[in-house]
This record gives sequence, C-alpha cells and structure tokens, in this order.
Amino acid sequence: MITKVRLAKVTIATQEDRLHAQISFAMEIDKLKRVIRRNTLIDGSRRENGAEHSWHVGMLAMTMGEHAPPGTDLERVVAMLLVHDIVEIDTGDCFRHDLPRSARPDPSPDGPGPEALAAADRIFDLLPDDQRVRLRSLWDEFEERRTPEARFARALDRLVPIMANHHNEGGTWTLYKVTARHLADSVRIIAEGSATLGAYAARMVESSVARGHLAP
Amino acid sequence: MITKVRLAKVTIATQEDRLHAQISFAMEIDKLKRVIRRNTLIDGSRRENGAEHSWHVGMLAMTMGEHAPPGTDLERVVAMLLVHDIVEIDTGDCFRHDLPRSARPDPSPDGPGPEALAAADRIFDLLPDDQRVRLRSLWDEFEERRTPEARFARALDRLVPIMANHHNEGGTWTLYKVTARHLADSVRIIAEGSATLGAYAARMVESSVARGHLAP
Repeated sequence: MITKVRLAKVTIATQEDRLHAQISFAMEIDKLKRVIRRNTLIDGSRRENGAEHSWHVGMLAMTMGEHAPPGTDLERVVAMLLVHDIVEIDTGDCFRHDLPRSARPDPSPDGPGPEALAAADRIFDLLPDDQRVRLRSLWDEFEERRTPEARFARALDRLVPIMANHHNEGGTWTLYKVTARHLADSVRIIAEGSATLGAYAARMVESSVARGHLAP
Repeated sequence: MITKVRLAKVTIATQEDRLHAQISFAMEIDKLKRVIRRNTLIDGSRRENGAEHSWHVGMLAMTMGEHAPPGTDLERVVAMLLVHDIVEIDTGDCFRHDLPRSARPDPSPDGPGPEALAAADRIFDLLPDDQRVRLRSLWDEFEERRTPEARFARALDRLVPIMANHHNEGGTWTLYKVTARHLADSVRIIAEGSATLGAYAARMVESSVARGHLAP
C-alpha cells in the first residue's frame, strides 16, 4: 500500500512539474508579441509583430491548404507556422540585414545561424522533454525546408508580404528599396511550396512592376 | 474533346475563384491585429490585440493538451482558438461592458448577440462555401461550449488573463476593479474544460488575494 501511495504522489508531482514547465513556456513565448518585424499590417498602419504574424500565416494554412501538394499534412503546417518565429524572441527579426527577410535569398547555404540555434535551445528547453523534442523538430523542419509541409509553410510565410505590398502600392518594398529581382527568390520559394500560389505571387509582382509600385 | 477542354477551363476558373476568395479572407482577417483587448501582454507593457492573443492561446492548446479530458481532439481546439475572436473585427472587444471579458459571467444565457452573429456571417462568407461552413462551425462550437474541445479552448482563453494578472501583481484586475468573486466564474469555466487547469487557476486567484493583489 505504501508503495502505491508513493507512486501516486510521484505521478501528481510529475503532472504538476509538467504544468509548471508549460506555464513557464507560455509566459516566455508571450514575448514574441514584442518582436517587431519589418513588414507592416496589410493596411500599412504599423509594423507587425511576430505573434500576430504567426497567427495570420496559421490561418492561411487553415484556409489555403488545398493549394499544397496532395497528401500534405496541414495540421503539421499550422503547428509549424505557429512555432516558426519563436526564436526571434532572442534574435529579433534580423534587422542587421539590408533587405527585409521576406525579400532575402533563401535557403541560406548555412541553415540557421548559431544565435537562432541557441535561442531554440533555450526556449524549447523550458518545456517537458517530450514536448521540447516535438516543438523543436517542428522548428527544425521549417528551417530545413525539406518536407512538403515545410515548403508549403514557407510559401505562406513569403506570400503574405507580397500580398500586403502589392495591396499597398509598393508598401515596404519602396521603403527598403526592394526590386522585382530581389523578389524572384521569394516567388521561387512560394512556387516550391505550391505551384498555384507561386503563379499567383508572380502575377502580383508583375502587376506591381506594371503599375510602377516596384522597381524591375 | 471540346467538352473536355471546357471542363478543364471551368476547373481552372473555379480554383482561381477559390484562391481569390481565400486571399480576400486573408486580407480581411488581418484587421484582427488592430482589435485592442482590455488584457495586457504578460509583461504588462501594453494591451494586446486579438490576433496575437489568438496565437498565444493556440500555442497553449499545442502544449497543454494533456490536461484536456482524454480523447479531446486537440487539432480542433487549436483551429477553434485561431478562429474564435475573428468576429471582433466588427464587434470589438465589447468595451461597453464594465468588466473585462475575461472576468464576465459565462455562458451568457442568450449565446452570441446579433452583432456577433452578423459579423460571423459577413466575415466567414468571404470564403468558398465549404470553408465558410467549416470555419463557421468552429466558431459556433466555441460559442456553444458544448463539446470537450470547446470547453477546453474556453478554459485556455480564460486561463491566460489570470496567469498574466497573477504575474503582474493584480495588473488589469486592479485597473478594472475585478474581485475574486468576479473570477469565480472564470475559474469554474476553466475547471469545466480541465480539472487540472481549474485547480491551478483557483490557486493563482487565492495567492493573488493572499498577497493583496486582488480584492476578495
């Protein structure tokens, strides 16, 4: 009997430990709401933060999944997009680059830098072990761009700023001197995730150039 | 042969129509980033918006799912939480109430008001029919609070402000004159979705009262 009681206590303690770890993680990731990205809201009124951006692309995955290759696991795409920017709590939106991230070449030949890897270690380590592994592998998968899920997630991540700037007569393209040539990489990345969305992005870029909102 | 070509064209047109509808929806829901809620970020630095809040509770569903009743469909909980506040694009965060929503009695005996229903009609109608039905039914499910998924989603939605205010020495509780009595409803709603989270919320409320950060 004593053994049984002890086991029960251990189980309860473990559940509480897990909950405490999960609460710490929940408190920590709230900081993504304060990470300001270069991209603006679609109405151009202000720059967006990492948390609201992650929600928006998650919603895109929920509603544009039919444009992913057949068999793509959309639940994993949504999860990956909710997680994909969390490391920016430590690294920021990479302001050191001249170009906004949405117009930078990708994949980088080196994969995520040491800062991003250290951030992923620190933040996902707040979770209980099994969850640390699961969320970290989602983040790794997004960074490695090898699965159809990661490619589709990345396509949506690249699609939104094109959509916004196309809508805003050039928006941040003008501000950061982005040209259609810079965007060729984005369009390719989008097409790698979804042929339909790639074609759509190419048309938005062309029409922005035609209307004089984007340099060729 | 001619029939075949025609069919192909119809299919292409339909796919494009669907994509245009989905893009319109994506542009429209971006406005949730501008809907300011009464609750603040966990660091208390500013009030949060509906989009970043939805991301945060979606992440909680991804990491706290083990505290939901066995058999709860966590994918649907995440989807429901990403969608649950979209109508606030039209209705706002109900500032007309004296109490912040997180401390208001729930369920309201009348369900969602006519404003919220009209907003749901308008916004989800932007999507192709099958998707309008799917997302609307997620929103309805959240509002109706009848399934374990809806109850767990609602528990997480209520848990976050208690977590934040407990952490912030009373935070918006002090500002809006919320008492532990007001929070009894929140604690009950959390417990209905998850016994573990309900007990945890009750302990946070008690400890906030004990520390003088919340009136009894």
